[in-house]
Amino acid sequence: AKIVILAGDGIGPEVAREAEACLRLISGARGLGLTFEDHLFGGAAIDASGDPFPEETQRACENSDAILLGAVGGPKWDGGSVRPEAGLLKMRGTLGLFANLRPARTYAGLESFSPLRADIVKGADMLVVRELTGGLYFGDKVEGTEEASDLCTYSRGEVERIARVAFEAARKRRKKVTSVDKANVLATSRLWRRVVTEVATQYPDVELEHALVDSTAMALITHPTRFDVILTENLFGDILSDEMSVIGGSIGLLASASTGTTGTAVFEPIHGSAPDIAGQDFANPAGAIASAAMLLDHLGHSAEARILEAAVEQAIAGGFRTRDLGGGTRCSEFGEQVRLSVD
Amino acid sequence: AKIVILAGDGIGPEVAREAEACLRLISGARGLGLTFEDHLFGGAAIDASGDPFPEETQRACENSDAILLGAVGGPKWDGGSVRPEAGLLKMRGTLGLFANLRPARTYAGLESFSPLRADIVKGADMLVVRELTGGLYFGDKVEGTEEASDLCTYSRGEVERIARVAFEAARKRRKKVTSVDKANVLATSRLWRRVVTEVATQYPDVELEHALVDSTAMALITHPTRFDVILTENLFGDILSDEMSVIGGSIGLLASASTGTTGTAVFEPIHGSAPDIAGQDFANPAGAIASAAMLLDHLGHSAEARILEAAVEQAIAGGFRTRDLGGGTRCSEFGEQVRLSVD
Ligand SMILES: CC(C)[C@H](C(=O)O)[C@@H](O)C(=O)O
Ligand SMILES: CC(C)[C@H](C(=O)O)[C@@H](O)C(=O)O
Repeated sequence: AKIVILAGDGIGPEVAREAEACLRLISGARGLGLTFEDHLFGGAAIDASGDPFPEETQRACENSDAILLGAVGGPKWDGGSVRPEAGLLKMRGTLGLFANLRPARTYAGLESFSPLRADIVKGADMLVVRELTGGLYFGDKVEGTEEASDLCTYSRGEVERIARVAFEAARKRRKKVTSVDKANVLATSRLWRRVVTEVATQYPDVELEHALVDSTAMALITHPTRFDVILTENLFGDILSDEMSVIGGSIGLLASASTGTTGTAVFEPIHGSAPDIAGQDFANPAGAIASAAMLLDHLGHSAEARILEAAVEQAIAGGFRTRDLGGGTRCSEFGEQVRLSVD
Repeated sequence: AKIVILAGDGIGPEVAREAEACLRLISGARGLGLTFEDHLFGGAAIDASGDPFPEETQRACENSDAILLGAVGGPKWDGGSVRPEAGLLKMRGTLGLFANLRPARTYAGLESFSPLRADIVKGADMLVVRELTGGLYFGDKVEGTEEASDLCTYSRGEVERIARVAFEAARKRRKKVTSVDKANVLATSRLWRRVVTEVATQYPDVELEHALVDSTAMALITHPTRFDVILTENLFGDILSDEMSVIGGSIGLLASASTGTTGTAVFEPIHGSAPDIAGQDFANPAGAIASAAMLLDHLGHSAEARILEAAVEQAIAGGFRTRDLGGGTRCSEFGEQVRLSVD
């Protein structure tokens, strides 16, 4: 299978390097036949071509089986007319990446790093399934100096397909879906609630509850263990998945997958490009490596995905901690440690 | 001054009763000349007239100097064609209540009730200034079974006036405004950011920072003490103010004010109608009483507002705790206790 590596900006290259090395090791050891190709993306691509998602990268992505992304953006490009994040949105649109999956949980031994009380956060383990190509993100925009507008639209089909992703994911977990909307105010939310309720009838083994986005923002903090799969629209997913990402102690640990209609999919750690520590070997590559595990799952190599995940857990349990977790382990050392236990 | 009491549904009447009794006591003792009128609102008004904000209530509100609201809604009206919450939106629109102010802080002695670690939450004290009559809430809606849409619009004037409210509030606090938007995606957010930056030039003594809504959802949990005034648009304000409301330990403690263009303003605790404990004298009236203190401020009676606030703090510090704070104090007892220290 063909893997495209988009190392990106800031700490992107260093964490992507560790994740790629893990994939190469596993591919070699287990004869998976993965091949790797580097391409420009984000700020690095703007510098080279003026476009954060250039034609050439786009074609490589379209012809790939999976994409591993490091991180994008940084102050260097903040003032410019083209922003690196525009590349992310263009990629989501072009590759039809309508489903963003973001798991978060507490790691044994890291409870004290959570900003939440240990008794509240203990055992939390959830997955946000965020719709990624609809809603306010891709609706018509009017950009004025006196007035501006953004249109939020959803169609039945868009809601159906993301709902199915959530119910399928719940079947492999604790069989509960919390669908989050603002049905007491928004027309799109009322459509969302109706369609999700219909889709649920095809999954009688999965429990469905509806919740409002404002009360969910509270419950994620007061009762994080109540949640299994959280299904929601694009902007609510952006906010809630970031909110829940901090409960585990470090966003450096967290992975994500964006899957779509074309077969290929993007795997990336949820952290940003952290320009302040870039190039210093301080970054936590656990999120990137956990993303590589999700990539293996996507390619059907579930046994290998579990091996890689277990190796990350073992490294953490073994006390190997990067700076975000108060330790002195370097990014490259952590990757090396993971590869030692994979072997 | 003429005060309209909208007791509403669930625990609304019991908490509003305690707050009104506090206002009556202070008005009598200090010769403020407040008068009180009860009117129907929410589910109670639907039962009586089919309208959650009937004509008669509307006229009384328009002719009032301030409105004290208990709580609205409940499962009884959830299936109906008219929902009590529609009354809230209609009231905001009719009375032009464009600014919603929600303070939250930790109370001495209650740190252990916060879901956040005590070392993280200690000293947190912030105010959300939420735009309340624009954005997705009041934009055009298309309500279909195959497709739906909601329009988010903001005009320069709408942003200017709410920004001014935030900067004025910051002047009376720690002189910092965090303006929250999603300027990397939304046209309305880019207008928002531009206009807020312009308004800030008139407040050189106040520090302004811009932040994205997703990273703010994280920072509220990881660094709650970083914030002073948080200025944001309607839907982001709905989500973030609910999120930050749980950090203090109980939403039963929190007050809010909605001010507008017509002179009158609405004061209400942020908690819901809690139908499960309604009528049992278990509710925490501290939020309603703190709202009454904000009402006194609005009427220019700041000395009396401070007295009432201090009395609430004293009752809490004295160990009088309602059920939400693990205590056995009844709603009516707590109110009585507050009035004893006002005297
Ligand atoms: C960079 C930004 C456009 C993006 C989003 O809002 O989707 C980011 O916050 C994310 O969650 O991937
Ligand atoms: C009931 C609902 C319409 C309302 C809102 O979203 O504004 C509520 O959540 C609030 O914050 O006052």
